[in-house]
Amino acid sequence: MPTADDAYAELVTRAKDVALVQSCSAVLGWDQQTYMPKAGAALRGDQLALLAAIGHEKATDPRIGELLAVVETSPLVADPESVPAANARELRHAYDRATKIPKRLVEELARVTTLAQQAWVSARAKNNFPEFRPHLEQVLAFKREEAQAVGYKGHPYDALLDEYEPGATAEEIRQVFTDLSRDLVPLIRAAADSGKKPRAGVLDRELSVDRQRWFAESAAAAIGFDFGAGRLDTTAHPFCSAFGPGDCRLTTRYNPRFFNEAFFGVLHETGHGMYEQGLPADHFGTPVGAYCSLGIHESQSRLWENQVGRGRPFWQHFFPRLNQAFPGTFDGVTPDEFYFAINEVKPSYIRVESDEATYNLHIILRFELELDLVAGNLVPADLPGAWNERFTKLLGMTPRTDAEGCLQDIHWSFGGIGYFPTYTLGNLYAAQFMDAARRELGETALEESFRAGDFSPLKDWLRRNVHQQGRRFRAGELCRRATHSPLSPNPFTRYLREKLSAIYTVC
Amino acid sequence: MPTADDAYAELVTRAKDVALVQSCSAVLGWDQQTYMPKAGAALRGDQLALLAAIGHEKATDPRIGELLAVVETSPLVADPESVPAANARELRHAYDRATKIPKRLVEELARVTTLAQQAWVSARAKNNFPEFRPHLEQVLAFKREEAQAVGYKGHPYDALLDEYEPGATAEEIRQVFTDLSRDLVPLIRAAADSGKKPRAGVLDRELSVDRQRWFAESAAAAIGFDFGAGRLDTTAHPFCSAFGPGDCRLTTRYNPRFFNEAFFGVLHETGHGMYEQGLPADHFGTPVGAYCSLGIHESQSRLWENQVGRGRPFWQHFFPRLNQAFPGTFDGVTPDEFYFAINEVKPSYIRVESDEATYNLHIILRFELELDLVAGNLVPADLPGAWNERFTKLLGMTPRTDAEGCLQDIHWSFGGIGYFPTYTLGNLYAAQFMDAARRELGETALEESFRAGDFSPLKDWLRRNVHQQGRRFRAGELCRRATHSPLSPNPFTRYLREKLSAIYTVC
Repeated sequence: MPTADDAYAELVTRAKDVALVQSCSAVLGWDQQTYMPKAGAALRGDQLALLAAIGHEKATDPRIGELLAVVETSPLVADPESVPAANARELRHAYDRATKIPKRLVEELARVTTLAQQAWVSARAKNNFPEFRPHLEQVLAFKREEAQAVGYKGHPYDALLDEYEPGATAEEIRQVFTDLSRDLVPLIRAAADSGKKPRAGVLDRELSVDRQRWFAESAAAAIGFDFGAGRLDTTAHPFCSAFGPGDCRLTTRYNPRFFNEAFFGVLHETGHGMYEQGLPADHFGTPVGAYCSLGIHESQSRLWENQVGRGRPFWQHFFPRLNQAFPGTFDGVTPDEFYFAINEVKPSYIRVESDEATYNLHIILRFELELDLVAGNLVPADLPGAWNERFTKLLGMTPRTDAEGCLQDIHWSFGGIGYFPTYTLGNLYAAQFMDAARRELGETALEESFRAGDFSPLKDWLRRNVHQQGRRFRAGELCRRATHSPLSPNPFTRYLREKLSAIYTVC
Repeated sequence: MPTADDAYAELVTRAKDVALVQSCSAVLGWDQQTYMPKAGAALRGDQLALLAAIGHEKATDPRIGELLAVVETSPLVADPESVPAANARELRHAYDRATKIPKRLVEELARVTTLAQQAWVSARAKNNFPEFRPHLEQVLAFKREEAQAVGYKGHPYDALLDEYEPGATAEEIRQVFTDLSRDLVPLIRAAADSGKKPRAGVLDRELSVDRQRWFAESAAAAIGFDFGAGRLDTTAHPFCSAFGPGDCRLTTRYNPRFFNEAFFGVLHETGHGMYEQGLPADHFGTPVGAYCSLGIHESQSRLWENQVGRGRPFWQHFFPRLNQAFPGTFDGVTPDEFYFAINEVKPSYIRVESDEATYNLHIILRFELELDLVAGNLVPADLPGAWNERFTKLLGMTPRTDAEGCLQDIHWSFGGIGYFPTYTLGNLYAAQFMDAARRELGETALEESFRAGDFSPLKDWLRRNVHQQGRRFRAGELCRRATHSPLSPNPFTRYLREKLSAIYTVC
């Protein structure tokens, strides 16, 4: 039996090896989405499958269980907030989850989700839900089996949610989302009923891709992304992929006739990237050096994209620069018109095209449907009807096709049940972090810094209170420590009410 | 004990896994040289070290030895030219080599060569050989130890050469190189003594990087590189990296004031790339699906760069296109002037800047010095003197500094002793392959096809006779089969004599 110190040291080495293998996969995944030639797809699949197998083997090595047992009964974990205690807690969590799910189930899920994703692409293109249905049934059956294997106290959904938002429960989220939708629905209705609309075409301009890239990169650098330790490339479905310390890749896509797509997309990914760049590099490969949860990750992207990037002070700095970057393009557009246009509340059938207010209703819809699907209260065959009924109730309009209804997202086809709520958790955490930062740094001082193009006070606050904490605490506890309050939808609804009442003058 | 068929199947699976791990490293290596941000270097080092360790572990698994023993004593290998026999032969060769070198030595070499490469960069920049000398001594000592561990019949150099040119021997190469230099030295002297020089500045023109890229890509596509299964990117030290079937990456660098650098660089890497694209994809991961040797690999790059790309028929097709790609840039330059300029024989101190004739004298020099270093007849302390003395004898001029003398190449610092001769072997194989292709396809027909911009007859000949053969035969045997003659320097010297006597009108 090794000493506790030796066991902990070996545990850290093994965790780093697993992280390095995953980080190799991340490089290959990034290349696949950016530069890989079409004909390389089959080889890339083989490479990634082998790396996944190697990583899984390393992550489930029984030696990890032995080492954990030594560390967990040692004085190393006496202080539950110490680095070793946090690492032991999270490594135990990951090891248990990985070893509880039988290898057969992992392989079955890999197989059915690969086929389901292909079927989804085809079904969505043809607006043919029945083509996707049997695949969804299979995925759902295996995910329910996964929930049983992992175990749960309350709802089986908890076991799936746990993969993305460790420690969160369906009940907790249901409560928060209920409060949220109670405030959000009338707010959105009031904006619609005001009859006010931004001037048409403000954002639909011919914009050279080169200039868009330059302007987006300069904004990303201004808010604090380190381009010496990262880069921005072009892809079809934008994402941020952090390989580890010193290397974080942002991606975007350019619409040559619409400003928002690339610009706010880049701000969003930059928020993810700055979080990764701010993680404690010394702890790379261990939980303390990793992001806290997907909800917290999303809070960082939403914070920079919406709380900051759709705010007045930000554009007081950037609007003149926008006109320099695209000479003549926005002639005749006033700062107020621009500000209204980027903050318009306009219900959409499509989640990824929706504004920061209605977006959350899309999530609440999916969360509720997922709960019912996992509990067995809803069968896939009834999904289109259930989707349209609840969508109409929440957003006041009815999808005309399944392609713009229950077939629009890729998530269920890859088995990502439990993923959706993290998007809205991100919005809520973002608003709550901003509230706390404003209180601590002074609202006026903070806005003054934005207007001067200096985003470092906010970035530094996030570094201290979020980024540098890694996964030392679970998301709920991180939020309590950073904001002195548990997660609540109120900062977000208050923020929206203030913004929308000013724009629509009615809410 | 598995049956022979089962053993062979498992052997193939294991070989493929090793190849896939190496191919993941290749993706990471390509990214490192093209897109990786500066700050990602340390992480990349850790990723590559882990993949190397995983690959080495898989390649030296004792199970491979057991499986080989079963296959080697089975009827599967009865026909030595069959796929299983060739795979068994080469897998045995690789397994023996990998397991004969002690792990300690592998690690020591990794350590000293990392330090030696850093010292080399610094020593070259400061023209300070004494700074590099102790590192070279260490590398040399470990490489000599490696030669002892691997074993050899003739010269210890054979054991090192074997890593790059399996089956070749120092004695064989010495003979070929002796014949080569006997013909080459007077040929180069005659060109110099002719007093003829191309008009100054023909190739030194302002050339937009975008247009250079476009023109080079169009030439690469014209000679047969499949851009649906590969791409061209920019780097500091150009290379070609093939990840496997369907994915081959070319790189180059652009000199905005000099045509040759990117254009002939791309032709060169395209030759490497077309070889990789032509390997039998069904056998990927096994020796039969891999390149034959570095000498054969280099023959493909030199063939397209020099034999084809510096030839008259090629430029009869491309010269008008050059003028379309760079309107006005080459105004007043005649096709003859251009042809002379790209074929000028001009001795240089620097190997990578030298022409296709004198290049080989640089290699002969290094080969002879390596033999003496490995045999212990020359100590690193005496290297600068020995270099300059032999350089003067071969090229008729004396390096003014060690930076442009024995410090110019990276190879020895990374332990690549035995690598240099493969460059000239490539030139010789290239000329011999071209000779055979001309005989089989008809010289006139072949040149006619080049003039028409159709390079497929030559490409198809290479596909059949070289690419599709993979490593089924060793280089010497591949050459005999493709050209009906063993390796000889004569086709190369004949080719050069004809070309240079036409240009310089004297040789």
